[in-house]
Amino acid sequence: MSQLPDNVKWLDEVKWDKDGLVPAIAQDTETGRILMMAWMNREALELTIQEDRAIYYSRSRQQLWRKGESSGHVQTLKEIRLDCDADVIVMQVEQIGGIACHTGRESCFYRVFDKKQMNWVAVDEVIKDPKDIY
Amino acid sequence: MSQLPDNVKWLDEVKWDKDGLVPAIAQDTETGRILMMAWMNREALELTIQEDRAIYYSRSRQQLWRKGESSGHVQTLKEIRLDCDADVIVMQVEQIGGIACHTGRESCFYRVFDKKQMNWVAVDEVIKDPKDIY
Repeated sequence: MSQLPDNVKWLDEVKWDKDGLVPAIAQDTETGRILMMAWMNREALELTIQEDRAIYYSRSRQQLWRKGESSGHVQTLKEIRLDCDADVIVMQVEQIGGIACHTGRESCFYRVFDKKQMNWVAVDEVIKDPKDIY
Repeated sequence: MSQLPDNVKWLDEVKWDKDGLVPAIAQDTETGRILMMAWMNREALELTIQEDRAIYYSRSRQQLWRKGESSGHVQTLKEIRLDCDADVIVMQVEQIGGIACHTGRESCFYRVFDKKQMNWVAVDEVIKDPKDIY
């Protein structure tokens, strides 16, 4: 578990929501592309900074999610920032494999709103078949 | 109020949280800088797309928040995307006035984690005194 004491100033600085979570946005430090947004609890944020890689908290699985643990698509931490309200985090990451999304795409934000169709439309290519990732 | 009927496919596509909200990230379309993250309810998202400007839902004030209504720092919508889980939105925006943050900074993410100090440190300049904005 964590090596840091429970009461840590920089962790207390974060305004955790009522579930003890904070949204964390991962941005590709080279391309500037927003790759994904997931959630961190206190331990996830602590480990992210300790290990210099993105570690989230999976709300569906209710456990720590070491991004890339099964896919190999680790996000190496280059910089981490907190916003003015202290309730959102942005990370600059190096996205190993160039794929952040479980659909095999670079970014999870692959659907753009099309005003002609009045709907969300997938516009980004699948780089790797998910069957070959997991 | 809204011109669209209540039951709209593209709005139903979004996975609203238990408070009826979705996180919305604003990225400067020119610089790639992540400016802020706030929340939208159904009406806010609908109006954002109708009016081509970022309209959020303020959780503290519990009402629609037409970004820029008091500061003039409107965010003009260039593109809007939905993620794979349909529970996060990213907007490409033109940030009028070059200031998104209520502190008078370009971005709300002006504090970076410093491993030497083991704390969040403000690193971005205040472009305009908030007293001169509001």
